[in-house]
Amino acid sequence: MLILLDQDGVLADFERGFHEAWDTRMGNLHPALPLEQRRAFYVRDDYPDTYRNEVEAVYHAQGFYRDLPVISGAIEAIQALLEFGHDVRICTSPLNQYRFCLPEKYEWVERNLGPDFVHRMIVTKDKTVILGDVLVDDKPSVTGTRTPAWQHVIFDQPYNRQADGPRMTWENWNAVLGTVRTFDGKH
Amino acid sequence: MLILLDQDGVLADFERGFHEAWDTRMGNLHPALPLEQRRAFYVRDDYPDTYRNEVEAVYHAQGFYRDLPVISGAIEAIQALLEFGHDVRICTSPLNQYRFCLPEKYEWVERNLGPDFVHRMIVTKDKTVILGDVLVDDKPSVTGTRTPAWQHVIFDQPYNRQADGPRMTWENWNAVLGTVRTFDGKH
Repeated sequence: MLILLDQDGVLADFERGFHEAWDTRMGNLHPALPLEQRRAFYVRDDYPDTYRNEVEAVYHAQGFYRDLPVISGAIEAIQALLEFGHDVRICTSPLNQYRFCLPEKYEWVERNLGPDFVHRMIVTKDKTVILGDVLVDDKPSVTGTRTPAWQHVIFDQPYNRQADGPRMTWENWNAVLGTVRTFDGKH
Repeated sequence: MLILLDQDGVLADFERGFHEAWDTRMGNLHPALPLEQRRAFYVRDDYPDTYRNEVEAVYHAQGFYRDLPVISGAIEAIQALLEFGHDVRICTSPLNQYRFCLPEKYEWVERNLGPDFVHRMIVTKDKTVILGDVLVDDKPSVTGTRTPAWQHVIFDQPYNRQADGPRMTWENWNAVLGTVRTFDGKH
């Protein structure tokens, strides 16, 4: 299978990075929302409008994307997928404020998955023009200009629980991706 | 049609940028090779091995990609393609030394095609996993892990004249892309 993995919220722990950076900067005024209480896909939509600029300042900051922790189990699962013979790519959309985010997403991959893995990066705002069997993404609905070739598997997060469809974590990925392979009729 | 345009050597004038930067830095020791004498796809392969580090230093430098001039006619052709109703994307591979090159490719597009055009960027080392009808690329042979959906149209440059296949410039693009549309049987 050609497996596309979204980066933030699937491999890189955006939520933990945001939580810690927010508490350092703003915790006295408004403590960070616990992960289990997050409901909106975009973190800014879960904070009061008056803090919009402060929320964006956290993830626009130099070093934020580079220093995100790894979501537990992700690296080991990628190694296993490669050993099973699957073709694994990272398929990520940059912020409109791309200056730091864009090279730091590459730095993150270099640091956590090794320099050769950088060649597996695909950066695009429109994931529907990328070929694949599966896209693992924490976004509840991934849309674009085309009908995608891939099947969307939702990477489980508290803020996407309202969405229907196959859903996985780095604990149950093997069973869930196995099901997808049966469903799509090609494997 | 979904038209993928390579960035360097098709839209951004890497050759002119390199020539000018080389002559400024190194012209006294070894004048830049005139464009019509360029034969290798990678500029470093057209300079003596002893200058390898100096050649790479030119395009690894901060600001090099950001400040590349536009290839004459490219912007007007893109506007015309969009007006004809085609879907146009930029499909580009970053250097392994991505730190400056990667955000500066976006800056270049923002500056020369406008901020909205940045959403049309696709960054990948492997262009064969990108859907498209046509890929316009100055590389003589564009390969990857798959059989591509797109047909490769070579963007004419002195260093790719040995390659066979449809070939275009920003003077004759309309006639050449019209031929491709007939050939692929879908239009």
